[in-house]
Amino acid sequence: MEIKIERTKNPKAKPDQKNLGFGHIFTDHMFVMNYTEGKGWHDARVVPFENLSLSPAAMVFHYGQEMFEGLKAYKGEDGRARLFRPEMNAKRTNASNERLCIPKIPEEDFVEAVRTVVSVDKDWIPTEKGTSLYIRPFIIATDAFLGVAPSKTYMFIIILSPSGAYYESGLAPVGIWIEDEYVRAVRGGMGFAKTGGNYAASLIAQVKAHDDGYSQVLWLDGVERKYIEEVGAMNIFFKIDGKIVTPMLNGSILPGITRNSVITLCKEWGYEVEERKVSVDELLEAQKSGKLEECFGTGTAAVISPVGKLRYKDDVMVISGGEIGPVSARIYDEITGIQGGTKEDKLGWITFVD
Amino acid sequence: MEIKIERTKNPKAKPDQKNLGFGHIFTDHMFVMNYTEGKGWHDARVVPFENLSLSPAAMVFHYGQEMFEGLKAYKGEDGRARLFRPEMNAKRTNASNERLCIPKIPEEDFVEAVRTVVSVDKDWIPTEKGTSLYIRPFIIATDAFLGVAPSKTYMFIIILSPSGAYYESGLAPVGIWIEDEYVRAVRGGMGFAKTGGNYAASLIAQVKAHDDGYSQVLWLDGVERKYIEEVGAMNIFFKIDGKIVTPMLNGSILPGITRNSVITLCKEWGYEVEERKVSVDELLEAQKSGKLEECFGTGTAAVISPVGKLRYKDDVMVISGGEIGPVSARIYDEITGIQGGTKEDKLGWITFVD
Repeated sequence: MEIKIERTKNPKAKPDQKNLGFGHIFTDHMFVMNYTEGKGWHDARVVPFENLSLSPAAMVFHYGQEMFEGLKAYKGEDGRARLFRPEMNAKRTNASNERLCIPKIPEEDFVEAVRTVVSVDKDWIPTEKGTSLYIRPFIIATDAFLGVAPSKTYMFIIILSPSGAYYESGLAPVGIWIEDEYVRAVRGGMGFAKTGGNYAASLIAQVKAHDDGYSQVLWLDGVERKYIEEVGAMNIFFKIDGKIVTPMLNGSILPGITRNSVITLCKEWGYEVEERKVSVDELLEAQKSGKLEECFGTGTAAVISPVGKLRYKDDVMVISGGEIGPVSARIYDEITGIQGGTKEDKLGWITFVD
Repeated sequence: MEIKIERTKNPKAKPDQKNLGFGHIFTDHMFVMNYTEGKGWHDARVVPFENLSLSPAAMVFHYGQEMFEGLKAYKGEDGRARLFRPEMNAKRTNASNERLCIPKIPEEDFVEAVRTVVSVDKDWIPTEKGTSLYIRPFIIATDAFLGVAPSKTYMFIIILSPSGAYYESGLAPVGIWIEDEYVRAVRGGMGFAKTGGNYAASLIAQVKAHDDGYSQVLWLDGVERKYIEEVGAMNIFFKIDGKIVTPMLNGSILPGITRNSVITLCKEWGYEVEERKVSVDELLEAQKSGKLEECFGTGTAAVISPVGKLRYKDDVMVISGGEIGPVSARIYDEITGIQGGTKEDKLGWITFVD
């Protein structure tokens, strides 16, 4: 894949690294590639960050044929820019694309596109502790056609957003709302894909949870509404009676890359790891008998998000006394250490940008 | 609501009415209105049809916070332009908006917006038999922000597309594929809302059905996968042993406006109408015993779409000998007659554009 590079003539001022927040600030450039039926993916290019001009009939506005990914670039103390397992995002992109009838992208082209645009904007990678450059690859259907059918044209775009530390004052446990009314995804649906519709479906429960003082929603399965699935922006793990337990991938759960990394590390450290069905009843029982030792979410944004409180209907489970558990803390230190270059990358998870 | 009108200086040539197809051709103008948190809906306007300019970070591209409606304008033999029950689209817009955390639009403003933009482009309403002006109102989330949360800004847009006769050579029965692997929507999800994610989820099964020679997919419920739901672009009706039967609205089925009109007419004509659960097994039984007398889909696009063949796994049910049934034909004639002004509008379903 040949990538043309057109640099901006009007570079923006870099933001204050102490007040980056998340997802509001964008860098000087973006990657764009088009797909046309019969021609395939073409015209890979890095161009100045700018608005998209699309017909109001473009299919993405009507039928949600869209997918996205999320990963980060980190600048280590050695000044080198690192990506964490970008080949996993490339693989998941094609799994999402297949479900959504979007044409696949060669995995090596996906990774090359990410590396190239990050390299052009590498001065935008923040260096303050906990900060990173959030990378958002996404694909949208662009046919100006109102029939319900897969589009014949698409755009693959990568935008970059310098992001602040997720926990500005250290790892803070969150309260999670186990949702018993609304459903995010179901067997046979598109829960395993990273696509707009799954997130659109989740907003109403998130608003309800926030109003009640909980920061995120934990979804139950759509069929029996008794098995734990995921947190929408994170996968979920439990430490029950010494074992690490997480819901198995069943088609309605996102196959998280951090999830995969956590399972790998825990096994390496000698923990028994179970990927299986986990019911709310099992959690309530485990908590009553003192066996629910830790609970944490895993995702690109926070890496590890300790859960101090789980609410289900009238039950509120307080976990680890509302504090961070030792396994959560150890995983966080290990993964962020590998990402920042202060811990050895034994498993080959790092791709250098240059 | 005050609507500013800016007319195009470059009107396009009108298309050949014999070759309109569906959803490819757009008129000279569109309606646009913006929403800003704290300010509400504002700046209602009719402007020349043109591309939208949006940040690549606009939420609609990432989290699918979008909804749409569909209705038609018809020009009667008397030359007057008519809308069919637009107040029902206004009501359903707000039901969709509520599920998707999109701010509501006053129903009278919705109808006024439709009337105004259709009135500006009334010369685009085709007059050949079976043709109409398809009206597509839609709302998209426009915040340039990558956090998962309801957007604080939106655009409400209406575009217009002259459309050909759905059945160019008269009402033709279609073959329908009852899908037993993929699921469109589930209880607790957003199936009752007209939003992109539901359609994105449906594409893969539609491709599979087309490859097998079937024109549309009939969805089963996501929990037990045994009850009939809807056809994605249509609701479904059966005539079983003299009674008109259709799946009840259960939260995962779109509350079709044509569906509602068909129920109303059939009751008025003295049919017993049942809105209830309908299982695939019941259909197979009814067909074996000769009691499955008719099957038809209902929707804005086709009004009535007779179903000649229903496939479920290895069973293929041929209905009405693959021909159009008398109830299907009677409903089609009645509704298209009211829409075209050749039948009396006893129920007050027509809104004149001028």
